[in-house]
Parts: sequence; C-alpha cells; structure tokens
Amino acid sequence: MILRIHMRGKPVASEVDLRDLARLTAGFSGADLENLMNEAAIFAARRGRGEVKSVDFQDAFDRIVMGPERKSKVLSEEDKELTAYHEAGHAVVSFLLPNTDPVQKVTIIPRGRAGGYVMSLPTDRMAMTQDQFEDQIAMAFGGRASESVFFGRVTTGAAADLQQATKIARAMVMQYGMSRELSLRTFGDQESSIFLGRDMGYGRDYSEDAATSIDEEVSEILDRNYRRAKELVEENRDKLVELAETLMEVETLDRSEFEELMNREQPQTPEMEEAVETAASD
Amino acid sequence: MILRIHMRGKPVASEVDLRDLARLTAGFSGADLENLMNEAAIFAARRGRGEVKSVDFQDAFDRIVMGPERKSKVLSEEDKELTAYHEAGHAVVSFLLPNTDPVQKVTIIPRGRAGGYVMSLPTDRMAMTQDQFEDQIAMAFGGRASESVFFGRVTTGAAADLQQATKIARAMVMQYGMSRELSLRTFGDQESSIFLGRDMGYGRDYSEDAATSIDEEVSEILDRNYRRAKELVEENRDKLVELAETLMEVETLDRSEFEELMNREQPQTPEMEEAVETAASD
Amino acid sequence: MILRIHMRGKPVASEVDLRDLARLTAGFSGADLENLMNEAAIFAARRGRGEVKSVDFQDAFDRIVMGPERKSKVLSEEDKELTAYHEAGHAVVSFLLPNTDPVQKVTIIPRGRAGGYVMSLPTDRMAMTQDQFEDQIAMAFGGRASESVFFGRVTTGAAADLQQATKIARAMVMQYGMSRELSLRTFGDQESSIFLGRDMGYGRDYSEDAATSIDEEVSEILDRNYRRAKELVEENRDKLVELAETLMEVETLDRSEFEELMNREQPQTPEMEEAVETAASD
Amino acid sequence: MILRIHMRGKPVASEVDLRDLARLTAGFSGADLENLMNEAAIFAARRGRGEVKSVDFQDAFDRIVMGPERKSKVLSEEDKELTAYHEAGHAVVSFLLPNTDPVQKVTIIPRGRAGGYVMSLPTDRMAMTQDQFEDQIAMAFGGRASESVFFGRVTTGAAADLQQATKIARAMVMQYGMSRELSLRTFGDQESSIFLGRDMGYGRDYSEDAATSIDEEVSEILDRNYRRAKELVEENRDKLVELAETLMEVETLDRSEFEELMNREQPQTPEMEEAVETAASD
Amino acid sequence: MILRIHMRGKPVASEVDLRDLARLTAGFSGADLENLMNEAAIFAARRGRGEVKSVDFQDAFDRIVMGPERKSKVLSEEDKELTAYHEAGHAVVSFLLPNTDPVQKVTIIPRGRAGGYVMSLPTDRMAMTQDQFEDQIAMAFGGRASESVFFGRVTTGAAADLQQATKIARAMVMQYGMSRELSLRTFGDQESSIFLGRDMGYGRDYSEDAATSIDEEVSEILDRNYRRAKELVEENRDKLVELAETLMEVETLDRSEFEELMNREQPQTPEMEEAVETAASD
Amino acid sequence: MILRIHMRGKPVASEVDLRDLARLTAGFSGADLENLMNEAAIFAARRGRGEVKSVDFQDAFDRIVMGPERKSKVLSEEDKELTAYHEAGHAVVSFLLPNTDPVQKVTIIPRGRAGGYVMSLPTDRMAMTQDQFEDQIAMAFGGRASESVFFGRVTTGAAADLQQATKIARAMVMQYGMSRELSLRTFGDQESSIFLGRDMGYGRDYSEDAATSIDEEVSEILDRNYRRAKELVEENRDKLVELAETLMEVETLDRSEFEELMNREQPQTPEMEEAVETAASD
Repeated sequence: MILRIHMRGKPVASEVDLRDLARLTAGFSGADLENLMNEAAIFAARRGRGEVKSVDFQDAFDRIVMGPERKSKVLSEEDKELTAYHEAGHAVVSFLLPNTDPVQKVTIIPRGRAGGYVMSLPTDRMAMTQDQFEDQIAMAFGGRASESVFFGRVTTGAAADLQQATKIARAMVMQYGMSRELSLRTFGDQESSIFLGRDMGYGRDYSEDAATSIDEEVSEILDRNYRRAKELVEENRDKLVELAETLMEVETLDRSEFEELMNREQPQTPEMEEAVETAASD
Repeated sequence: MILRIHMRGKPVASEVDLRDLARLTAGFSGADLENLMNEAAIFAARRGRGEVKSVDFQDAFDRIVMGPERKSKVLSEEDKELTAYHEAGHAVVSFLLPNTDPVQKVTIIPRGRAGGYVMSLPTDRMAMTQDQFEDQIAMAFGGRASESVFFGRVTTGAAADLQQATKIARAMVMQYGMSRELSLRTFGDQESSIFLGRDMGYGRDYSEDAATSIDEEVSEILDRNYRRAKELVEENRDKLVELAETLMEVETLDRSEFEELMNREQPQTPEMEEAVETAASD
Repeated sequence: MILRIHMRGKPVASEVDLRDLARLTAGFSGADLENLMNEAAIFAARRGRGEVKSVDFQDAFDRIVMGPERKSKVLSEEDKELTAYHEAGHAVVSFLLPNTDPVQKVTIIPRGRAGGYVMSLPTDRMAMTQDQFEDQIAMAFGGRASESVFFGRVTTGAAADLQQATKIARAMVMQYGMSRELSLRTFGDQESSIFLGRDMGYGRDYSEDAATSIDEEVSEILDRNYRRAKELVEENRDKLVELAETLMEVETLDRSEFEELMNREQPQTPEMEEAVETAASD
Repeated sequence: MILRIHMRGKPVASEVDLRDLARLTAGFSGADLENLMNEAAIFAARRGRGEVKSVDFQDAFDRIVMGPERKSKVLSEEDKELTAYHEAGHAVVSFLLPNTDPVQKVTIIPRGRAGGYVMSLPTDRMAMTQDQFEDQIAMAFGGRASESVFFGRVTTGAAADLQQATKIARAMVMQYGMSRELSLRTFGDQESSIFLGRDMGYGRDYSEDAATSIDEEVSEILDRNYRRAKELVEENRDKLVELAETLMEVETLDRSEFEELMNREQPQTPEMEEAVETAASD
Repeated sequence: MILRIHMRGKPVASEVDLRDLARLTAGFSGADLENLMNEAAIFAARRGRGEVKSVDFQDAFDRIVMGPERKSKVLSEEDKELTAYHEAGHAVVSFLLPNTDPVQKVTIIPRGRAGGYVMSLPTDRMAMTQDQFEDQIAMAFGGRASESVFFGRVTTGAAADLQQATKIARAMVMQYGMSRELSLRTFGDQESSIFLGRDMGYGRDYSEDAATSIDEEVSEILDRNYRRAKELVEENRDKLVELAETLMEVETLDRSEFEELMNREQPQTPEMEEAVETAASD
Repeated sequence: MILRIHMRGKPVASEVDLRDLARLTAGFSGADLENLMNEAAIFAARRGRGEVKSVDFQDAFDRIVMGPERKSKVLSEEDKELTAYHEAGHAVVSFLLPNTDPVQKVTIIPRGRAGGYVMSLPTDRMAMTQDQFEDQIAMAFGGRASESVFFGRVTTGAAADLQQATKIARAMVMQYGMSRELSLRTFGDQESSIFLGRDMGYGRDYSEDAATSIDEEVSEILDRNYRRAKELVEENRDKLVELAETLMEVETLDRSEFEELMNREQPQTPEMEEAVETAASD
C-alpha cells in the first residue's frame, strides 16, 4: 500500500486506521499523500503532540479537499440556521437510506466555497448499483427537502446538490442503461467527449426524439427521489430538528456523535416541539 | 478584515462604518481596495479635509465601479425627465418590495455608460431565495414600468435592465430549480460553459422540448414580475412623481434623504396633481 | 468640447455652427476630427478661400464617411431616374414622419458604394423610443416603396435598406422588448456575440419556438412599416415627383433647399401631372 | 478610364470599342488589364498583325477568364451534339427573353472545365431588377431544358447552371426581398458570413420555419423559370435545331452571326424537320 | 498525348492500345504515368521479356491503384466462395445493364483492402446521364444482391458498395437535379464544403423539411436500383453460378474471357443445377 | 509470416501453435510482436524454464493488451461473486450462440480497468455477417443478463458492454445496411469523421427523421438481443451457476477447462440447487 511509503519514518499513532485512510484518499496521487502527511503533522504539532493522530489526518484531509476553514466569516443567525437544517437534511436522509455510505462528519463551519458539508466515507466497491445511485440522488436532495419542509422556501444553497443529482441521473440513463423506458444502449459519443468536453451538442449520436426521452427519464428519476427525500424529512422531523439544533450549538459532529444522536430515543422536550411548531411547510 | 490593512496609517474619520464599507466592496481585490483608499483621499483633499469621510469613500466607489461622472454632458430637459422617472421607478419598486437590499443612492447624474442609477447596499447573505430573485427582477423592471405608466412609451434605456432580469430568470429555472413546471434539475453543462462562454447552443445537454419549457417558465417569471412592478408604480404614482421631481431638482439623493422622502406623509400639493395629470398611461 | 481643440489656430468662419458639427461627428476619434479639419481646409483652399466654411466641413465629412465622389461614373438616364426616385422616397418619408432626424442633404451623386444618399443630422438623445425605431424602418423602406409606386418594380438597390430595417426590427424584438406578443425579455447571448460575431446559431439561448415567434414579430414590424412608407409615398406622389425631378436636374439639395421644396405650395404644372401619369403602380 | 493607361503606347486598332471592352472587363484589376493587353498582343502577333484588334482582345479575354482552349480533346459525335443543343438552349432562351444581356458569342469548343459556353456582354447598370434575375435563371435553365426536349434525358452537364440558378434565387429571397410570401426582410447574417463562409448553418439568424419558407419560395422561383425556359425551347424548336446544327459545323458564332441566324426567316428544309422528328420529349 | 512522352525510348509492344491506356489512366499525373511505365517494365522483366506488353501495363495499373496482391492471404473455402459470388454479382449485373462501362477484369485475388474486384474501363464521355448513374448504383448493389440470393444472408463485404451507391444517389438529388419530387435546384453549399469537408451539417443551406425530402428521394433511388440488381441476379442465376464457379477455379477473368462466358450458350450441367439448388433465397 | 521473424533465435517450445498466435495478434505491429516475445521470455524465465511455452505467450499477451494483473486488489466476497456471475454470463451465452468465436479464457482476476474478462479467439474471416454481429451483441449483454437474473439488480459493471453493443448495432444500421426498415444506404459522412471524430453532430448527412429511424432500428436490434441473452441465461441457470462457483474457487479457466465444464453432464448437487434458490429473479 502506497500510503505506508509516505508514512515511513513519520510518528503515526497506532490508533490510526490505515484502511479507512486508504479509502478516504482513493484517487490521491503520491504528491497528494505527501501533502496530507505534512499537513497532518502540522496539525499535530499545533496541538502539542509529537504523534500524528486520526483527528490530524481528518483535519488535513478537509483542508486539502474543501479548502481552509473560513472562521473569519461570521454567519448571521439566519444563515447558520439555514445551513444547519440543510446539512441535517443531507445527513438524516443519508442515515435512513439503505444504500448510502456512512456519514463521517457533519459540520456547519464554512470551508472553501461550501457553507457546511456532510462527509461520507466511500465503501470500497467495484461497481455501483441502480439503488446506490438513487440513494445518492435522494441524499443530494436531502438539503433542499429540509429547507422546503422547515422554512417553506427554496434557496440557491442547493444549486451544487441539484447539479450533482442531475449528473448522476443523466449517467444512469445515458451510460448505464438504468432507465425504465429507453432500450438498453448508451447515448452520446464518449470518445468525442474526451476531446471536446462532456455532453456538448455536436457530440450527439442520437435523435431529438431520443433527447426528449432522455429528459423525461432523467426527470422521472429526479422527481421520484426528491419525493423520497422529502418523505424521509417529513417523517423524521423531530430527529432532524434535534440534529440541526445540535449543529447550531456544537457546529461539528463526527461519525460516532452523529450515529449516537440518530440512534438514541427521541426525548420530546417542550423546546423541541416548539421548534417544530414554528417551522413552515411548503 | 482586509480593509483595515489598507486603512492603516490613513486618516479615516470615525463616522465611517467599516462594516458597510466591507459589504459594499465585497469581491474587491487588494489592489481595488488600495485604489479605493487613494481615490477617497483625493476626494477628501479636494474638499479641503485631511480626514477621509464616508462621502469620500462613496464617491471613490462610484468612480471606480461606474466610471467618472459625465458633467459635461448636458442632458435635454426631456432626457432628464425620462431618466428621473426611470430611476425613480427602480427606487420606489425596490423600496416597496420586502426582499430587496436597501437603496443607498439614487442619482440622475450620468456616469460611464449609465444615464443614472440606483445603488443598493447588498446585505451579507449566504444564499438567495426565490423571493429575493423575484424582487430583484421586479426592481429591474421598475424603470421600464415607470416609463410606460408616465410617458406611455418604451425606450432603449431599459435594455440593460431587461438583460439583467432575463439572466436572473434563466438562472432560477436552469441552475436553481426555481420553476413551477420543470422538474428539479439543472439544465446546461456548466463545465463546458467555462471554456466556451455561457449558454452557447452546443453546450446544450437537454432536448428542444426542454428548451421550449425553459422559455415558457422564464416568460412566466418575467411577466409575473413585470406586472408586480407596474402595479406598484401605478399604486404609488404620487410618491414616484414626488421622487422624480425631486431628482430633477437635486439630481442625487442619498439613503437617508431617499428614505425620508419615501416615509413622509404625501402632501398632495396642486403642482403634484398636475404632474400626475399630464402623465400618460399605456 | 474636443472639437475646439482641433480648431485652435485654424481660420474657421463664424457662421459654422459648432453644435451641429459636434452632433454630426459624434463618435469621431481625435484622429478623425484632425482629418476632418484638414480635409475641410483643403476644400476651402480649392475654393480660393482662406476661411473654412460650413460647406467645406460638410464636403469633408461626406468624403471621410461615404468615400470620394464618383463623378467619372456617368449614370445612364434610367439609373439616374431610379436613383432620384429612390432617394426622394427616403427623403419624403423621413420628412413626413414625426420621429425622424431632420434631412441634412439629399443627393444622387454616387459616392463610395452608394448610388446616392440621404444624410440625416442625428438629434442628441439618450435613448431611442419604439416610435423612433419604427420611423427609421419606414424611412429605410421609403426608397423601395418609391421604386415600387413609380416604376412598378423592385431592384437590388434597396438591399442595404432592407438589411438595415431587418437589423433594427430584430434589435427591437430581441434586445429592447418592443414586441407585442413576446414577453419582456432579451433573446440571444450578448457576451458570446462579442467573441463569435452577432446572431450566430450557437449563441442561441432560446428555443426553436421562440425563434419562430421572433421571426413573426420581426415580420409584423417590417410589414407594418413598409405599408406606412408606401402609403406616405402614394399620398405624396406629386411632392415626391417634384423632388425627384429636381434632383435629376441639380443632383444635390441641402437642408434648407430640401425643406423649402417640401414646404412650398404644390404648383401642379402640366409637366408634373404627365410624370405622375407615366408612373406605374405595383 | 483606367483601360487607356494600359493601352498607352500599344498599337490598338481604331475599330476596338473601348466602351465595350470596359464593360467586359468590369472588376478587372490593373494587373488583369496588363495581362489582357499582353495576351491580346500575342494573339495579334500570331496572326501576323502589328495592330491589336477586337478579335485579339476577345480571345485574350476568353483565355484569361475561361482557361485555354482544349483543342486536343476530340469530342465524340454524341458529346458534340449534346453540347451544341445545350449551348443553343442557353443562347435561344437568352435571345428571346426581354431582360437579358446580348449574347456576345456561342461556342462548343471546350475551354477550361466548360464543354462549351455562351458569353454575354453585361450592360452597365446600377441595380438589378427582379425581372432581370428571373430571366437570368431562365437562361441558366435553357441548356437543361434543351437537353430534356431534344434528348429526353438529363445529364450532369447542367450542374453548374443549376448551382448558378439556385444561388440567384436564394439571393432574391434572402437578400433582396423579391419573394411573394415572405415579408420584406433579409435572412442570414452577412457579417458573420464574411468570416465563416457564405450560408453556413450557424450563421442563421432565422427560425427553421423561415428556412422552410425560404426553400418553398426558392423552389417556386426556380420551377416557374424552368417552365418558362422549357416553353421557349419547345416553341422555338426549329430555330434551336438550326442553331445547334450550325454550331456542330462551325463550332463558334460571334454576336452578329448569332443574331443574323436568330433573326432570319426560318427556311423549313426537310432535313431540319427530320431532326426535330427524332428528338424526344420528356 | 502526354502518355507518349513517358513512353519515349521505352520498348513498348505494338499490340498495346494507347487509347485504352489513356482512358484507363485519365486523371493520372505525369509522376503517376512515369511510375506506371516503370512498374510495367519491371513486370515485363520478371516475365523475361524486353518488350512491355498490355498485360504488364494492366498489372502495373492494378498494383498502383489497388495495392499489391495479397497472395500470402490464404482465403478459407467459404470466404473464397463468398467473394466469387459477390464479384460475379457485380460483373453479371454490369454486363446486363445498358448504360455501364465494359467489364475489363473480374478477380477474386485479394489486393490492398479489397477481397476481390471488378475493373471497368470508363468510356470517354463528357457528361453522365441519370440512366448511367442508376446503372452504376444497380451494379454497386450487384454484389450484395448476389450474396442475398445465393447465401440468404448479408455481410460487411458490401459496405464500400453501399457507401458508393449512397454517394451517387445523393449527388443525383443534391447536385444534378435528378430527382422526381424536388424542384430543380442544388442543395448544400459547395464553397464551404471545400474548406470544411463535404456534407457537414453546418454547410446546410436548406431546411430540415428539405433534408427529409432529400432522404426520401435518395431512398427511392437506392431501393429502386437494389430491386433491379436483385431481379437481374435472380433471372440470371445459372449464368452467375457459372461465372462464380469459374472464378473459384481460375481466380481471374479478363475482358474477353468474361464476355465469352457471358455470351455462350448455358450448358446446364447437373453439377450446376445442384449448385443452384443449395443456394438459399432471402 | 512476420511472427517467425521475431521468434528467430528464440527458444520457442514446439507445442506453441503459431497459427493460433498469429490470429490472436492480428493487427499487432512489429514492435508489438517484439514486445510480446520479450514479455513471454520473461514469464518463462520466472517459471524457471529456458523454453518459451504457450502459457507464457498467453500471459504476455494479457499483460500487453489488458494491463498488469491487479493481485493487490483484494475483492470483497460480494464483488467477487458479482464478477464471477457477470463473466460466467458472457461465457455461457457465447458458448451457446452459433456465430461466436470460441472462448479462450474466462477469469475473475482483475487486470487493468477490467474486473474480469472473457477472452475469445477471433476466427480468421474476411467479412462479418449480420448473425455474427447479433451474436456479438447478445454475448456483450450476457454479463448484464446474468446480473439481472441472479441478483435482480443492475450495476455499472456492464457499462463498457453496453457501449460496445450500441457501437455494433449503430454500425449495422448506419454502415452495413443491416436494418429491417431503413433503405439500403449508409448514414453519416465517413470522410469528415476521420478529421473530426466519429459520429459528431455536424458530420450528419441525413435528416432528423432519419436520425429517429436509426435510433428505432438500433433499439430494436439491442432489445432483441438482450432478450436472447436473458433467455439463454435463464434456460441455463444450473450451468451458469456451476461456472460462476467454479470461477470463485479457481479464478481462471482456460479453453479446454471451460469447454469440459460446459459439455459435461450436469451433476445437480444439493449445494448447487441451494445456490440457484438464493438467486433472485428480476
């Protein structure tokens, strides 16, 4: 394993799970791993430790992939609440769906361009199933669904989620034959795509009628999964409120904290009911 | 805050609200801020002051963003009136809508390419809601609505407003999923757009049927908000006349002057009635 | 005024109206103005005058903008007549319409590519109204309408007029929201146009349905204004014949000569009636 | 006249009509004229003359414009007959139509790519009328119509004529507003055409519906004029046969020989009737 | 004749028909002819002759145009049979059609990319008629028709024939006005084709409706001639079997051998009947 | 045979079938063959042999064509099972179809990008028949059909198969005239394809209607053959389970092992029935 090479002679704590780290850094180049090692060592040093721990690797990973934390950015209470409910939406939907990767972290601390984010740990798998794609789409819609259920309005915050969901749905229909109506074929010329950029009009090797059918299938997939996301949000309002309110307090939950919260018995405190009360439906 | 760095050692008056200035200059580079500081100091010096005040920053900002004032350009009385009613239309509609940024300045002094302009102070927010977009569109249509109501005719002066409104409406439908009929997806390939320019035909990843639906949704959004703008103009004819006539006299109103005028009781002087009388409806 | 700078130390006659000259040369660069001054001085010198007069500036302007006179080109009597009626059509329609600029000169002396031309003095205005655009289109159709009424046939001489009229009508519909049926939006991506040339197919940001509607609106505007031009020509046959016959004799009329002719009582001589008689209708 | 400059000091015969020569060489550059003068002098020298005559200029012109004669190419009797009837078709239709230029020469001697050709002397005119365009189209169809009437079959020999006729018809509809159904406008963006070549798909500034209408109008114009050409050929079979048979004998007729033949009383010899008899109709 | 120049001083046998050679090498450059002369001399030398004969020119020609023989390639008996019936199909259909060039050679020896081929000697003609084009298409379909009749299946061996037939049919409809329904015009901009490659979508100067009509006409022409080819094959089964079986034995037939076989009385041997028996129909 | 040249002086075992090797390496360049020889020698050396055997050539071939084995990649039991049933699907369908090449190897050892693969030995043939293409498509669908029958779900693992099947079906319809409804022609301009990449929109030389028909034919071919593949999988469940389970144990089967397994009497052990039991149907 290439990771071990970069760790050679570095004081890595025994509690660091190399297997998890390998999965997280799948696709990293040697230079990326070198960079990760160095950043993690800096975090450890700042924390007054000679040994690099899991938390240092995690922070180094976040910094490299998502950009530096933007602590200076003081969010308004309103934006903080919006972010908390948005990220809680992703996390709750992901938790409840059977074919998603486990949530590694939920945070509302802005980083790079993102206002907050849910980090998942990808399972090492060879192929994706249709069910996994559909759950990914539903999870991408979780934030928007939560905004819609709790604030009764829609913001630009979900734009990247929308783009991601559309991209998956189009790949399902056009590359993987995972649609109900269209025959089992691929659409679009992959070779020309490499040269000219993805999905450009003149790379079309299908008719306008097929383009219409593709759009209909894509819509069908997206609509179906938005409904699933919204139903999960509505059926788990209490839990989602609990998570969002917790996020507003502590800002970040790691995997064990998140799972503990999701699995514990709902206490139903009066404050919580009130929070649900004030949330609008759309 | 980066602004403070550029102010270090500069005689900035204590009445300057750094927070407002920061919001106004969001997106400015270090060089832009340096430039702003210098221009403001020049304005202060011209005014015989050693201390740089808010007004100096405001004028420096206008000069940098909109270009130099074109005082030499002596507008005809007709053009002056047209500009006054056009800008008053933007300002009144903006003032009356719930989701717009506060008007910072209204002016009919030409600057750069603009015949006049309404400057808004953007609120520091993380995401835009559909309501905010719709109010932005209605505000963009305010000038045209006012021309139509008071002069019964339509000019090229509203071309940039039209373009702006169309751009927002298209983004709502194509990037943010804020349409009524279309399913929750994005349209158009953002990646190829970067390379080839926005919205070019061959970046299309959707069918002609979808293009038709997009056009219908865009039209629906634009028509709805033009109607809103026009109703606001018609229902607030007296106030709009008062603002336009004031602008023809004093040429520029700052935020407090504008808000004072908007909030004061309508006096209903005979001259004003007459002005309303002579205005044509379309 | 920049014009004064270029005139410094030049013997310009006091009768020269600097304001008119400024309007005529709107958009001229410093080098253009320098050139104009020199050419005007040459014309004055040829005419044995030390002082540069209005007529010298006018001739210098024509030479710079339209190219040198082509006196060597001896027109056939038939071509001369066709040109005279064509230009008279433009001039008469322009004179009779309420929203056009005053005619500065009418001539049938070929210059550059043009067989003859009508020069208008643009009024200094900030914005164009729909009425002004429509009158510009009708004026552009004046030449063709006159050919059709008096010769009962259609020539390629009107091609540039047709192109100009189409360009204005398309801008009205696509950029200025001046159509009856289409909603208030812009069509076509201006940004990409800069790079790739105007109106190219792949700059389309609208559907084929919209393209059809645009064509219908453009046709509607053009047809409406051709009818207006033709009605004006038919209702003012006598005056148009008088102007055309005068042009065939004197070749060029300046503004005062043209307006004097247009405003004087129609004498109704027998020769003129005859000319009208022989003219075919289409 | 620029032609005189190139003739200075050259021994040009007094019978040469400079005016005709000027019309023939309209659009020639100085270098072209220099070339023409030299080639004509060579022809004169070959003919043992010191003086350059009309016939020398004509041959020099043909050589420059159409390429060298291909005498070496011995045509089969069948090809010779086909060429003779094809060119006779052009010439007869041109002679009979009111708005065509006079035929200067008819020949079946191959030159460059052409199997034979009819040379017309363009009249010096400023603008083209719709009637002139339609007669040009009908004349272009004359060769094909003759092939069809006399041989009852169609060959590739008319391909260039077809292309020429289509080009004229499209210009009538798209640039000159000479169609019956379409409104008075231009189609296609001329500016982008300069850069990207004429009539390319992405230079389209009109809808698919308009493209269909353009095609219909173009077809209508072409069909109408093919019918005219064919009727003229059918009504003047005897004269056409006379011309074709003469061409097969003498190969080339100049203007006066051609006009003499066209204007003389038809003798109706038995041989000629026979020729008509054997010709098939389509 | 340029051929003679290249033969100067070469020992060419008197039996060589220069006229035939000239027709065969129409379009050859001087260098091509030089090459042909040299290759022919090499073939003669290999055959132990000092004099270059027709057969040497023929082999040299084949080598230059089709590539070297691929003797090493040992065809399976099945492939050999397929090739024999395919080439026999071309040859028989060509022989029976009235407007084709005479068959110069039929061979099943692979050469370059071709598995076998029929070489025709183009007649020296100036123009192609519609009948000649249609017979060329039918001949191109001869191979496929034979495969279908005798083996009841279809292979990729006919791909180049299909492409050739489509190219001719499209040229008939788009360039030569040889269609039944479309009006007499050309389709597609030849000028832009030179620059951008033939038949590319953006060189379209016609509507989608016209494109559909072109496709229908092209299909009509192709279907009609495939039927003709198949009928000829079916009606001449015995002769075709005789030719194919002969080819499998002797591999190559020259013009006289081929014509002798085609013209001789059919012997109807029992073996031949058997061969016909085993051939499937589709 | 070029292969012999590269083997000269190399210690190749007499059991190596040069003919098989030649077919396997059809299309290899001299450098490729050189490379193959060297790699095979390395494999032999590793195995402690001085003589290069068939197995060494096979492994060298796999390494060059598919990339190095990825032994380090430890597949999950689930992925291993999925791969085994996927590859067994290809192999069983290929074995049962009449027009496919014999299976040379089946393996679930990942290599390069592939999770596993079935290697076929192409028969030396000149042309492909429609039946061969259809069987190739059905074989390509074998993996997906097996996933669907045994796991009741669909994964991205079949994406390359889908692309391959679509490519064949499109070539059948567009280049080889192997469709039922479309007339016998080619679609798409091959010449422009060379320059601009395959199947790009602007290389279209056919109408949108034709594009729709092409899509329908392609779908028809694909659907038909997916059904065939699925029926074969369903009808041979026991055999496929036996092969897949064997693959999970031994990872790789060569041609003789595979054929022995396919041809032997099905033993019907209880374990196997159980395996079938647990497999879901879709």
